[in-house]
Formats: sequence, structure tokens, C-alpha cells
Amino acid sequence: MVSPKLNKMAYGGDYSPEQWPEEIMTEDMRMFKLAGIDIATVAVFSWSLMQPDEETYQFEWLDEIMDKLHENGVYACLATSTGAHPAWMATRYPDVLRVDFEGRKHTFGQRHNSCPNSPTYRLHAARLARKLAERYKDHPALAIWHVNNEYGGICYCDNCAKAFRVWLQERYGTLDKLNKAWNTRFWGHTFYDWDEIVPPNILSEHSAETRTSFQGISLDYQRFNSDGLLDCYLLEYNELKAATPDIPVTTNMMFMFKQLDYAKWAQYVDVVSWDSYPSNETPLSHVAMWHDVMRGLKDGQPFMLMEQTPSQQNWQPYNGLKRPGVMRLWSYQAVAHGADTVMFFQLRRSIGACEKYHGAVIEHVGHEHTRVFRECAALGSELQELGDKLLGSRIHAKVAMIIDWDNWWAMEFSSGPTIDLSYMNELAKFYDAFYGQNIAVDMVSVEADLTGYDVVIAPVLYMVKPGFARKIEQFVERGGRFVTTFFSGIVNENDLVTLGGYPGELRKLLGIWVEETDALFPHMVNRIVMAEGRELEGFKKKYTCNLLCDLLHVEGAEVWAEYGDEFYRGMPVVTCNAYGQGEAWYLASSPDGEFLADFVKLLAKQAGLESVLSAPPGVEATKRVKDGKSYTMVLNHNDMEAYVELGSSTHKDLLSGQLISGNIQIAAKGVWILEEA
Amino acid sequence: MVSPKLNKMAYGGDYSPEQWPEEIMTEDMRMFKLAGIDIATVAVFSWSLMQPDEETYQFEWLDEIMDKLHENGVYACLATSTGAHPAWMATRYPDVLRVDFEGRKHTFGQRHNSCPNSPTYRLHAARLARKLAERYKDHPALAIWHVNNEYGGICYCDNCAKAFRVWLQERYGTLDKLNKAWNTRFWGHTFYDWDEIVPPNILSEHSAETRTSFQGISLDYQRFNSDGLLDCYLLEYNELKAATPDIPVTTNMMFMFKQLDYAKWAQYVDVVSWDSYPSNETPLSHVAMWHDVMRGLKDGQPFMLMEQTPSQQNWQPYNGLKRPGVMRLWSYQAVAHGADTVMFFQLRRSIGACEKYHGAVIEHVGHEHTRVFRECAALGSELQELGDKLLGSRIHAKVAMIIDWDNWWAMEFSSGPTIDLSYMNELAKFYDAFYGQNIAVDMVSVEADLTGYDVVIAPVLYMVKPGFARKIEQFVERGGRFVTTFFSGIVNENDLVTLGGYPGELRKLLGIWVEETDALFPHMVNRIVMAEGRELEGFKKKYTCNLLCDLLHVEGAEVWAEYGDEFYRGMPVVTCNAYGQGEAWYLASSPDGEFLADFVKLLAKQAGLESVLSAPPGVEATKRVKDGKSYTMVLNHNDMEAYVELGSSTHKDLLSGQLISGNIQIAAKGVWILEEA
Amino acid sequence: MVSPKLNKMAYGGDYSPEQWPEEIMTEDMRMFKLAGIDIATVAVFSWSLMQPDEETYQFEWLDEIMDKLHENGVYACLATSTGAHPAWMATRYPDVLRVDFEGRKHTFGQRHNSCPNSPTYRLHAARLARKLAERYKDHPALAIWHVNNEYGGICYCDNCAKAFRVWLQERYGTLDKLNKAWNTRFWGHTFYDWDEIVPPNILSEHSAETRTSFQGISLDYQRFNSDGLLDCYLLEYNELKAATPDIPVTTNMMFMFKQLDYAKWAQYVDVVSWDSYPSNETPLSHVAMWHDVMRGLKDGQPFMLMEQTPSQQNWQPYNGLKRPGVMRLWSYQAVAHGADTVMFFQLRRSIGACEKYHGAVIEHVGHEHTRVFRECAALGSELQELGDKLLGSRIHAKVAMIIDWDNWWAMEFSSGPTIDLSYMNELAKFYDAFYGQNIAVDMVSVEADLTGYDVVIAPVLYMVKPGFARKIEQFVERGGRFVTTFFSGIVNENDLVTLGGYPGELRKLLGIWVEETDALFPHMVNRIVMAEGRELEGFKKKYTCNLLCDLLHVEGAEVWAEYGDEFYRGMPVVTCNAYGQGEAWYLASSPDGEFLADFVKLLAKQAGLESVLSAPPGVEATKRVKDGKSYTMVLNHNDMEAYVELGSSTHKDLLSGQLISGNIQIAAKGVWILEEA
Repeated sequence: MVSPKLNKMAYGGDYSPEQWPEEIMTEDMRMFKLAGIDIATVAVFSWSLMQPDEETYQFEWLDEIMDKLHENGVYACLATSTGAHPAWMATRYPDVLRVDFEGRKHTFGQRHNSCPNSPTYRLHAARLARKLAERYKDHPALAIWHVNNEYGGICYCDNCAKAFRVWLQERYGTLDKLNKAWNTRFWGHTFYDWDEIVPPNILSEHSAETRTSFQGISLDYQRFNSDGLLDCYLLEYNELKAATPDIPVTTNMMFMFKQLDYAKWAQYVDVVSWDSYPSNETPLSHVAMWHDVMRGLKDGQPFMLMEQTPSQQNWQPYNGLKRPGVMRLWSYQAVAHGADTVMFFQLRRSIGACEKYHGAVIEHVGHEHTRVFRECAALGSELQELGDKLLGSRIHAKVAMIIDWDNWWAMEFSSGPTIDLSYMNELAKFYDAFYGQNIAVDMVSVEADLTGYDVVIAPVLYMVKPGFARKIEQFVERGGRFVTTFFSGIVNENDLVTLGGYPGELRKLLGIWVEETDALFPHMVNRIVMAEGRELEGFKKKYTCNLLCDLLHVEGAEVWAEYGDEFYRGMPVVTCNAYGQGEAWYLASSPDGEFLADFVKLLAKQAGLESVLSAPPGVEATKRVKDGKSYTMVLNHNDMEAYVELGSSTHKDLLSGQLISGNIQIAAKGVWILEEA
Repeated sequence: MVSPKLNKMAYGGDYSPEQWPEEIMTEDMRMFKLAGIDIATVAVFSWSLMQPDEETYQFEWLDEIMDKLHENGVYACLATSTGAHPAWMATRYPDVLRVDFEGRKHTFGQRHNSCPNSPTYRLHAARLARKLAERYKDHPALAIWHVNNEYGGICYCDNCAKAFRVWLQERYGTLDKLNKAWNTRFWGHTFYDWDEIVPPNILSEHSAETRTSFQGISLDYQRFNSDGLLDCYLLEYNELKAATPDIPVTTNMMFMFKQLDYAKWAQYVDVVSWDSYPSNETPLSHVAMWHDVMRGLKDGQPFMLMEQTPSQQNWQPYNGLKRPGVMRLWSYQAVAHGADTVMFFQLRRSIGACEKYHGAVIEHVGHEHTRVFRECAALGSELQELGDKLLGSRIHAKVAMIIDWDNWWAMEFSSGPTIDLSYMNELAKFYDAFYGQNIAVDMVSVEADLTGYDVVIAPVLYMVKPGFARKIEQFVERGGRFVTTFFSGIVNENDLVTLGGYPGELRKLLGIWVEETDALFPHMVNRIVMAEGRELEGFKKKYTCNLLCDLLHVEGAEVWAEYGDEFYRGMPVVTCNAYGQGEAWYLASSPDGEFLADFVKLLAKQAGLESVLSAPPGVEATKRVKDGKSYTMVLNHNDMEAYVELGSSTHKDLLSGQLISGNIQIAAKGVWILEEA
Repeated sequence: MVSPKLNKMAYGGDYSPEQWPEEIMTEDMRMFKLAGIDIATVAVFSWSLMQPDEETYQFEWLDEIMDKLHENGVYACLATSTGAHPAWMATRYPDVLRVDFEGRKHTFGQRHNSCPNSPTYRLHAARLARKLAERYKDHPALAIWHVNNEYGGICYCDNCAKAFRVWLQERYGTLDKLNKAWNTRFWGHTFYDWDEIVPPNILSEHSAETRTSFQGISLDYQRFNSDGLLDCYLLEYNELKAATPDIPVTTNMMFMFKQLDYAKWAQYVDVVSWDSYPSNETPLSHVAMWHDVMRGLKDGQPFMLMEQTPSQQNWQPYNGLKRPGVMRLWSYQAVAHGADTVMFFQLRRSIGACEKYHGAVIEHVGHEHTRVFRECAALGSELQELGDKLLGSRIHAKVAMIIDWDNWWAMEFSSGPTIDLSYMNELAKFYDAFYGQNIAVDMVSVEADLTGYDVVIAPVLYMVKPGFARKIEQFVERGGRFVTTFFSGIVNENDLVTLGGYPGELRKLLGIWVEETDALFPHMVNRIVMAEGRELEGFKKKYTCNLLCDLLHVEGAEVWAEYGDEFYRGMPVVTCNAYGQGEAWYLASSPDGEFLADFVKLLAKQAGLESVLSAPPGVEATKRVKDGKSYTMVLNHNDMEAYVELGSSTHKDLLSGQLISGNIQIAAKGVWILEEA
């Protein structure tokens, strides 16, 4: 459960009554009741109010808020306010200020602005967390701790440089090992003293954010920065847990956020939470995938949907409104993928500064007679009806897809073969093929236990970390199906190439040797020509592919398809290698969606993967299971009603209370939660 | 009159004989006579020549120029040369150098390069103005003072930071008021000491020039910077007026220039002047609109066309030549909108540095046998013929369009709902609709007296300043017609949202409530579907709109049109509210040009607005009036001749001297000035 | 000859065994033999290894490499390693670090990173060169010295500012002359003290890299920077020559590299060398032109192809593979234009840092059984067969095209008339027309002796340096044909306009006066309408032109074509002026390729220019001559075979050993070297 105090799907969101006159909060409480809101994230950005100067702390205002929340049956997701330091701290202790990628020391402004290696910041952030923990540890409203907010950003200041050297000493021990790991004899960059190492930015190794001369140092700086912010988090975490060991602690994560190794971070949060901000043009499967990433971070444990907008955002280029029903639909999409809360940014719109045009449950008009409020209240009511039914339920997937932040960083720092390679794009293409067939996928790290899975997909597994190749071999030996692609098996954890022929450590398993890799200009495609007889397996004759084309030779693998164009026409583009009880597939180029759809169908057939529901395009279905009961969630993302075949048995839709079966219509933007014993 | 000494439309421009050997000026005088040139703007950038070091001033060279001008019947528009500080000043007193938006301290170079809050700059600029005033106060050539040049740019140095704090103290009095005005409890930005406030740039609140976390501080910095440059101007102005109370003082303004609040500046210039540099692809109505802005700055008082190019510019990406006749045509367009001078940059082309490929009356070839010179001389001759006929004449418009710099700044600092919102685009769309029907428009500030107008247009009046809503209500009560649009009435002068429902203070007048605002992606449009029977008012059935779509409810207003698409299909998009004797219109989205053309026709019919001339597209007409006589100016911007219906009465064209009437042909690029008693 | 030690076309490339375990070099030697590799460029980036601290030098590792190379019959192109300073030097002596165009002091990273005016860098670079020269002067493997690597980049630090002032004092003597040369009275930039002059960058005169307020200072800074790096080169050169007067010295140049005045540099290298990195979409003629530029730098002396990739690059956006046969074809293209070596970057791929995905003779797989290695070995074998046949042979061209770096810099610093003007584009358009007809062209500097040529082409000769106009007049007087274009003859060597009518010093020769220049928007074209009867000369009736259109009047020249559009329709666009025994052509706009093809045919006919071979499109042919023998190289760049007419005489193809004649087929990507007595 998200928190021992929350016995239903918590519903609420970010709330800043300290920005308002006192009477407003009374009105808010009235409206929260109308909307069924029972959780409020408070004190997200209130450091300057909590600590007006170095020696003074004032919490009376927060006491009042906490008390009033409690009086009104609203729990607090209590934030620590360390996501933005006070102005006085910036003036008095400039070490809290970041130096950016361009080497510019910042002054005061924005948020997420503190240097993670600032002694001042660390001291005061931990102290504030301790004060809060001590003051509110027994407060009945306190349901969960929310450390900081959307950690991120990178600093390149002198304190960071020093801390980086310490981090490197811990990692490498000796300069000799570091020089080897970074291959510093290239361009004569050998370091003879730790102090010669400077942060990699535009003033040193970089010519742009992802263009570096030395991948080794740049990759390590990403790790160091992720670890540095994690250290800041842990300072607060430890203070909070010392006072309130039973109150769960989280920090909110972000969509496709590259900077932080969430797989590592997740080990240190009690519950995962994240902020979901798709635009109206974001593919639905991308959001679904990221929900699954969040669920995967702690082995399937339900997560919190910490933030979403009730209507529109403000910070995108074009902030379209969520269409009627979409807020509800996307809320349930989160639940369908494992969320156990539905929360918003924000409960009431501020009147000034940069988020005043961000949607809110209570808009500037201030009353409940708005489309947005009505939709929020309707959902609140449904969630109250649902009670604890789905709470803690799990999703059982037989497909695992690997996501690895080191791989992401390393691949996109690579100089060559193409600037268009995007790890997220490639993951999303594969994910989308499973999503389109309503086959559940777990997004897991390279550390994950793979024994429960039938299929493991690792698109563009450029970096193979120690032990992973052996683990995946064992997985296949035992009958698993493994799929990987072009530009895989190239480097080790230090971005040093594995010699002896690509795909390096995966070569034996895949039964191929990749001799060369061609990069295609954006206007170019090649063709995937299926081998004779593959129609019987459900394939068309031809598909397209682009981006990169590996030129490979089979070493035992079976050729399923060949290139149709270029001088490597006739060379294999899809291969499958029998290995032990299982099979290992290789896709030598980036195929089109049609190919992937057909390929997933084949995998499903071969591995006996179950589709939750066979449904028309745009109708998504997942299954959460708890205490022997299963809850099939069906979501119609289309603008039109759709027909779904439920079969002859009767299902109870928890939302409408109706019993349904057979070939039945689901409304446009409609949602069912079908309970089955 | 522009200057008591100028009894005809002054004709000339920027002139820098100090860049040339002495004999050249003699030749210039000869050519000026051929061209009818009688005014020269001198000493625009000569500070380093006037003051070669801190203690030395040398004006003998300028004496010679002034004398020679006088001898040749040419008046001086005498500049103060403070638009670019000398190199020695930069080396000796680095406080004159600016720090840019990126936080970089500049060294020496370019122009308009002085920090407005530099003590050195202020001291020396005022001293130089005093020296000039004392030396030339009785010079017979002196017709007008030209302070500095094209004021602009922003500085973020420490002196500016200090001055900003002083400016804020004057504005807000207490930090408490400032914190409220900027809503600093958002993101915990509360200031407890004035010294904690730093200039808003890329190192603090901004992530890009128009992307800020705190609109309040960014908006105030725009005001502060505009005021700071105005202070610099006033230092010089006061020195000049002390010595020569009767010589008018100006400084040249720029096209659609956002940085300076010209409405405020205009209070401190004796005559408005501006530099008109359209490219060959700038819409004609944009230039016309800006002429009207300039005329409106001092309540219709004629302005100076201080600069235009005789042929081509150099600083645009593609500097096409003005086609034959276009220089004359555009000169008269300026006159047609209220200019009482026709002046060029530049009279002679320099041989080195960045403006050597900018057009000039005297080109590098150095003689008069060029197309450009011939066109200039022909125009000069015409202007001599015209004498003082039009001088001081006025334009009488019944339509006022609001332009407000604070509104401009605030709207474009807004984070959301769309990055495509441009105040100038929206103004220009409306202006163009009137322009297309030759209906005169005054461009006025929110401070303007509106009593003389029948129609007031305020596109995107996002910010409603204190008292304005009441003023516009009174205007409508008395029978006026008011038109405003989407995203209006949102904030007060501090960019704080007016609570209780959009459009805030304008809600009662407009009889509507805007519940939400949808932002459209660039590839999207919606449709304006006119209500039944509107064909009778001259409307088509359907138009398009885009950018933003307000979702509104009428509260008394009549619905003229509904949206045709999206979930808000059927909601009002054009409404009209009867209020007192008048009507208040609301356009809830940004309509296409066709709609606006038909809408302006309706307004014209309803309000009895007069078209100066009913003419084919591309034929512009305005009317200037003086001493009971009216001068109708007709300009054919087309590449083909056009037929114009003048009616049965006979008109005298002052340019050709001919009497014309009936349906008559105007030449391609032709101009008439029709005098009528 | 490239080096007295090299008696065949040297074959090899960059080689860094110091990045590898010792045993790898043994394997490399085996594979070098298989590939026919006999030269290795070593120690390109090994400063940190050679000099681990300020007092210590260690060369033992290099001794071993040199010895092993020698033992294996491989010569060394021995680099001085000064292209990247050691990290310890950056930490200890920050004066070696550059300040960039944005004014940012860099820390440590990348390469080509040393300030050219750093005392530390100069001291240590020269000392290192001396040490190397002393140690290896008698080493039998040493064939050629390779100073630094790909010199380039610009520094704007205080040391550079000081050095710039010294450079300016040498150039101008007095500030008065400098002020005149830079026309500093414009915008009042007069300098009264040398110390007032600061480097022109974003903090001073520039608003972007090619946008400057003062062309004079910006142009001089380009010259100063080119000279400063040349001084660095010369420090090393002098040390090397002092020890080894007979070993040639080079430094590798780059493709269309604007920063360094290679014409000036070439005077100080013993042999020219360059690095050729076309992408798969670079036009073939651009590469051919640059080969010819390289050959022209030292009056036709053969040059070294120092680097090319065997397969693909890594630093381009899309790094496509060289198609089969293309590496061989492009290697011979270099030879066909005067190269006497064929060398690669790199012989073995590194495993870490930013060039690990750059092609190599020995790829990561590490063995010889790759397509790339096989192609390399086949070429190596051919080159061994060829022996010294072509070595030292020359190309005899009757057409010279002027390339001038000062002109390049000045033209592209120009503010106006269009941002789209690119010197290289205009050169390449003309070059391509000759290339398409297999007419040899020498690319020569303005200093070149033109007496041997029949035709001289000088596209966009914006800057006319002292004496050049007279030289070209004499060339034409004696019967030469001269061709120049729009925007020529405008300025002198200081970028000051030549008064009295464009094209200034070329006006008399060309018999025209350019009155104005129109700049076309990118979507615009004009038409070239040929005068009556020009069909007889092989012209079509009409062509197109764009970019800039000069409006000119003939002053004796004959009009060959007129503009077909715009108000200057009917004005001349192509003129030819009889002058002495010769003719001077003027192309007043930038014509399409069709026009240039027909124009070149006319020139060829008139001047009796010889096509090496009349061949289908895509079949290139050049002729190298030595000791009375000629070698016609024929290269089929097409993907299909082509038929070539060799005539009745019999030719021996040195590559196949076959005798061929008549109308005969050349394979796709095929190459012939036809020897004729």
C-alpha cells in the first residue's frame, strides 16, 4: 500500500494555501468535499516561508494547514520544500548556486536550483527535513513524505569538481585505472593528478550537450550527478525515517527523464511516484510505457500518480485542453498500469508567476460550476465507490523490456554512427507493438530477476554490463525468448568497445557477427524482405526499416529476412538463433511499426503470451490481480464508441455497477473495471 | 510644426561629412541643391571626435559643418552623439559597458552600448549635451535637437541591479507589497531584503528571453529599463532645453520596437520621430499602422520620418532594392499618415564598416547620374512645390485602436497557453481590416481620451490597468462600440490574475464569462459559424479561426457566431453585448482576414464610419485636414495602374497640378494629393 | 617528391599503437604487410605521454614504435604531438587555455585547444619539436615530419589581445593609419591608444560569428589569428629543419577550411597535405576542387592525401559507409588531382573516446577478413604495382581559378546585400562546370603568375588587392580571357570601398558600370535572356539566375544576355569586353548550372581548352604528365558501367595491365590509369 493510512485510492494533489488569504482555505475545504479529495501535497516550495533567515524557523502557518486538512478528512503528502532555496541563502552563501553547462554561475531564481554538492545546501536541507519530521511525526494528517520535488539539473561548479574527483577515486581507486577506463591515451589526455580532472561541459570536453570528446568522463559525470542528487535525497530520507519509520517516503519522478538513474534511485524510495504530463499529441503508448517503467522500478509495486493536470498545462508550446472525459480516462490509464493514487497539480490555481495558466481543480473563477470541476468531482466520487478494491493489486506480465539509464546515456553520447538514434524512440516502438495487442509488459532494469518471464526485449542494448550477457544466456538456455537489435553489445560499462567482433558479449547467444553498420540519411529507407514461407507465420512479404543497418553474417542463426536494397541487399536483417531451450532474435535495423506488430504476434504465438483483451485499435486493456480476484480495465481512447468482445461469461463493471458480456459497446473515452473472481 | 524654423516639409537625412575629406562636403552641397535637400542630421555618432579624452572637447570640425550647412540653406537636425561612447571611456571607466542577458560583461564595440545606469555615462552624456547646447544655441542652422539615436538594449550589470532596487522601492515602498505584487510565495521566492533581488536574466529567472519563472520581476525590469533609458534621455533633454527652450527636441524611435514604452517616452519629446525600414516583403499595412502609432503618441501631432532608405538596407537578411517609384510612394505614405518631414539614412554612403552597403542619396559612385539620386531629386522638387501646404495638418479618425507596452510585455512573458501569441500580429490583423477599407484609425494608449471616437478596438487586452475598465464602460454607455478578443481582461498591472471569472474587469461590459481557453497546435483551425440571418449583415456562413479558442458562456450578450468544430462546437465565438447606448463585442478566437474584413464593414455601417475613398485593393487613401482644407492622399501600391472613383466634383492634385474627377486611372506606384476646400 | 625516402606512392595512415598492449603491434605489422602499408603517421596526440611533467620527457615507447616500423619496412610520418596540450599544463599554466568567441575561458579538454599566443605553449611546443628532432633525426624510419594536426580555432584571451595590438602596430605603424583603414569615424570608434583595441567577438563588435559592426577589425583578426597559428607552426618547423634539413615537413590541412590562409601557409610547408572527409552526399566536384586547391598551393607540386576514411566517419550527422569500390575510387581521384600518397585515418580503431566509430583499416573485430580490409589490401597491392610511375608527375591546366582567403573572409563579413552569399558555393559552381567537361583547372592565389594560362576565372572577386587589377589587365591585354561576377571589385585590402563606381579597379577592364545590386529573397529567381543569335554559340534562349543581381551599364562591353524579369528587365546580365588581345567577361548574377556548362563550352572553344576526355556524366578524367609520359586517369563515379570513347590508338591501363582502345566500357566505380608515351 502507498501508505498505511490510505485505505482507498488517494485523490487530491498539490496545494498551496499559504499563497492565499486564510478564508480561501475554508472555501477550498468545502470544494474538496464536493470533489471527493482526500489528499493534499503541501509545502512543496515553502522553504523561504519556513525559514525566513538562517536561525529562524516558523511552522505555525503549516500547523494550521495540517490541522485544517485533518479536520476535513484530508491527508497530507507533506513535502520538505527543499526544491528551491530561499533568496537569502543565495545572497549569503553563493555556494548553493549552480554553475551551468556553459560555465555560468547563476544568481537567484527559478527552482531546482541548488548545487547538489553545496555544503550549505546539504546542511540546511537536512536540517529542515529534521525539523519537519520532528514537528509533524505524530500529526494525524501526515500520510506520506514528499522529499524535494522533481529532482534534476546538473551543476559544474568547483565544489562539484572536487566532489567528482572524490567520486572517481572511489570508483577507480587509481589514476591508472581511470586513464584506462576513459582511454585517455587517445588525444593525449592522460591524467597524472586527480586535480587535473575538470567537469565535462562546454568549456572542456563538450561541443554540445550530447557531443563529447570523451564519452568516459561524460558518462561518469552523469552517474556522479545522479548519485549526488541521490545523496541529497538520502540526507533528507534518513532524517525523515529516523523520526517516522512507518511513514513512507517518496520523491516525484518525471516522464522519460534521462538525467537521473531512476533504477538506482528507486532502491531508496518507499514508494515510487511520478508526474505525468503528456500533451494532446503524445502517443498514448508512450505514457503507458512510462507508467510501466514506474511500476517496474520496484518490482511491480503500485506507484503514485503524483501529478497530472485536470485540464491543460502551461509550459508546453501549445497547451491544449484535455477533451471531456480524457482526464478521467488518463487517470484510469495510470491505475490500469499500477497507480494506487490519482493526484493533480494543482488543486487551486495561483494568481501570479509562471504556473498561473496551468489547469487546476479549482480555477481562477473560484467556484465549482466548471466543466473541469465537475469532471474532477465525478471521478472523486467513483474513486470513493471503488474503495480499496484495487489497492495493492498487481500486474502479471510475461514480457520484460530492459531499460537502462547507463545505456541511454552512453548511446546518446556516442559520436557516430547517426545523430538520430534515440533510446526512447526505439523502446517506444517495441513497446507500442505489445501495447497494440494488449500484452502486458514489465519495464525492468538490467539487474532484474528474469526467471518469471517468457520473453525479454532489449532494444539497442549498446552497453552490456558485467554479468548481463551470462544472465541472458541462462534465460534463453532455460527456454526464454530474447530479442535485441542493431548497435547492441558494443561496449562495456565504461563505454569501451568489446573487441573481437560485434555484438561482443552477445555474439554467441545471437549466433551472428556484425561486420559493419551503415547509417541512413533521414530521407533514406531500406527494405526488410521476408524469407520464403514466412507468410505462414503471419508476415507480409516486405516491410521497411531505416536509421541504422547492420551488415551481418550468421554464425548459426536462422535468417528470417534479408535487406532488399543497397549493396548489402540479400544480407540478413532479421535472424533467430536457437540456443538451449530458447531462441535469440536479432533485428539488424530499425523496422517499421507493421513489422513489429507482426513480429510481436509471432512471439506471442510462440511463447504463448496472452492478450488481456482482443480489442479494436485504441481500446487498451490491462489486468490487475489481488487476493485471487482479477480486475480487467478496459479503456477506449477513441473519439468514437467501440465494440469489444467479452465472451459469454458475465463481468461486473465496478464503475457502472452493470453486468456485461458478449459483444458490447464501450463509449468514446469510456472505462470499465471488470471484476472477476 | 516640427520646428519653428521649418516652413516646408523638411527633406534630407543623416549626414556624416566628418568621415570624409573636406572637399567632399563642397560637392555634397552642390548635390543637395540638386536634390532639394534642406535638412541634415549631423553628429549622430561623433562622441569620440568631440571628446578625444576626458578633459578635451573639440568642436571646430562641427562648427565648419554647421556653418557650411547654413551657407547652403540646409538646416541641422543636430544630434548629441551619445549613442555610442568613445573607446577611451570603455577602457578607463568599464562601468559604461553593459552586461548582457547571458550575464556577459561586454568590452568595447558596436553602438547603443552604454549602461543606462553607469555614473560615468550619465555624467559625460549630460556634459556633452550641455557643451553642444551652449555652443550652438544661437547657430542659425540649428532647427532641431536629436538626442542620442535609436535608444534600446538592456543591461544587467551590478549598477543596474542597484538602480533596479531603488526603482522597486519607489514603486512598492515595502518588500511586503513587492512580494505580493510578484506573488513570491509561489516557489518560495519571498524576499526579506532588497539586496536579495537580482536582475531577471538567464542566470536567474529566465530560461530564454521571453521565458521567465516570475512574470512580475521580468515585467518590472522591462519598465525599469525603459525608464532608465528615458532618464538618460531626460538628462540630455533638460540640458538642451535650458539653453534653447524654443528648439524642439526629439529622439528617433523604431518599428514595432518592444523594449521602450514609447507611450511614456512621447510625453518627453517635443516632436515624435521614427526610422522606417520595411523590407520588400513587409506588409504595407504594418508600416501604415506604425506611422499611426507614431502619430498617436502625441495625440495626432505630426511626426518626423527621421530615417528611411532611398534604395536598400544592409542589415536585413535579403536587402532588395526599392523598386522605381517606391521610395517616393512610401515617403508619401508616411506623409499620408502624419509625417511632416521626409528624411533618409543616409545622404552619403560611408566607405567602411557595417553600413557601407546601406542605400544613400549619394552612392559610392559619387555623382548624381543614378536612378536613386534622380528619384530623390524628383521628390525633393515636389516637396519644394508643396511648400507648407500640409504642414501641421491633422487626421481625424473615429476609430481608436489601443496599443499598450505593458500589455505587450506581460502577454509575451506569459507561460501558456501558446507560444505563438504575438501582440503585434493581432494588432496588425485588425488594423489591416480597417486599412483595407481606407478607414482612418488612431493608435492610442490606454491613457488616451476616448470621447471623440465611435469605435475602440483593443485586441488581446490581456492586462487591464486601473481605471481602464471603467473608462471603456463609460465610452460604451455613451454609445461607443468596443471590440476586444480572447485572452483579455486576465490580469492587473502587476500581471496578477483578476479572480472571479475571465475576462475579469471587462466581464460585465462584455456580458460573457470565459470558462476555459484552448490552445491550438499550428496545424489546427476551428471554424466560425455565423448565426442564422447574419448574411443580411454582409457575412458569409463560415470563416476560420486559430491560435486560441475561448470557451465562453453568454451573460446577456448576443451570439453572432459559434464554433464549428471540436468539443466546444456550438459555443459562442463572436458575441455582442448591448450596454448603455453602445455595444461591446468579443471575438473569442483569432479570426481569418476575411472575417475581419466583413466585421469591419459591419462596424463601419453601424457606427457610420467613413471610408476616405472606396478603392481597389492596394490603393490606400488618407485625409489630412488643416485650416478648413482637406488633403486626400491616394497611393497606388500596386504594380499596375488602378481605377479610382472620385465622383463628380473636381479635385486638384497638388503633385501633378492637374484637375481630376470621375472614374480615373492612377498610375502604378502613383500618388495624388487632392486638395479640397 | 613527397620525401626523398618515398619511392612509391606511400600508403598507410594514422597509427597509435601506444593506445594498445604491446602484442597488438606485432599483429598490426602482420596485417600491414597483407595490406601493402608502408607509411604510418605516429605520435599525433602523444604530448602527455612524451612529457608527463614539465621536466620529464620519455621517448622510449616511441623508440620502440619507430624501430618496429623500420624493421617491418614501414616509414614514419612523425608528428610532433603539439595538437593537444597535456592536462598538467592546463592546470599549471592556464595561459595555454583558449578564450572562445563568447568570451569564455576554457578549462581542459578536446584538442586544438592551445592559445597560439600562450608563452607556455610556444615554449613547450618548440622544445618538444627540438627534442623529437634531435632524437629521431637519424632514425631510418623517419620519412617526413608532421607538425601538430589540423591547425585551427581562434582565441580571444588577453594574451591574444596584446599580441593583436603588436600585430596591428606592425601592419599600420600609426593609429591614424589604423583608424583610416577601419574607418573608425563611423559610429565614433576612433582609437586614441593601442590599448583601447579589443579582440572582435560577441562581447565587442560581433553579434554573431559573421556579423560584425566593423569589418576592418574583424578581417584583421582573422589575418592575425592565421598568422599566429602559423608562427606556432614555424617555431616547430625551424626546430625540425635545424636538425633534419633534408626531411620534408608538413602539416595537414582541411576541406574548405576558412580560418587559415592556406595560400600564405603553403609557403612554409615543404609539401602540402590534407585530410579529405566528404560525406556520401558531398558533390564529387567539391572534393575535386579542393584537391586542386591543395595542388595549387605550391604551384602544382604533388601533395599528400594525409587522411581519409577507409569506410565511414563518426563525426558527421549521418555516417554512411563508403560503398564497395568507393574508397579505391576516391583514393585514385586524389591521385588524379595530384596526390602522391594515399593515407587513412586510421590504421586501427581505438576502443574508447570519440573516434571509436570512425572507420579503420583494422576494425574492432581485429582480423583481416572484412570487406574494408580486403578493399584496403587490394588497393595496397595496386599501389605497389604502380611503383614510382606517377610520382612527381604534374597536371597542366590552361584555366586558373582564383581563390583568396582575404576575399573569403571579407565577403562573408559583409553586412548586406544578402546573407546567402557563400564564396565556396560560387567557386564550386564555376568549378563544377569545368569538371563536368573534364577540363583541368588550377586553383591559384591572387599572387600566382598567370602567364601560362588562357583563362582566368575569379568568381565574386569582392576584394581587389594592390596590383591585382593591373596584373589581370596585362593578362587580358596579352590575349587572356578573364571572367568575374557580380559583387566584384568593391573593396580594397582593408575592406574600404573603391569609390567612383563599381566594379572599381576592374571597371575599365570589364567595360561596365554597376549602378546598383538587388538582393533576391530565396524564393526568387530572375532570368538570363540570351541576345539574338547566341544559339549559334551553343546557348539556349533562357536560363535562370538568383542571389544577387547587379544593375549595370555597358561602357564598351558587348551584351550577351539581359535580365528577363523585374524592373531591370532588359539590362545586361552577361557582358564581354574586348580588351587588348583578350576579353573580359562579367556575369552580373549567379547563373544556374546549365548556363555555366554552356558558358564553359564557349570559353573552351574560344580559348582552345582541351577536355582530357569526352565522357558521359559522372566519368571524370585528368592527365598527369612526367618525363614526357602522360597518365590519363579515368574514374567512373556512377553506379552503372559507362562507355568511353578512347579513339583508335591503344592505351595501356596500368591497373589492369590491359591494352584498351575504341568505344569501351568502364565498370561502375571503375578506374583506369592509361599510360601514353
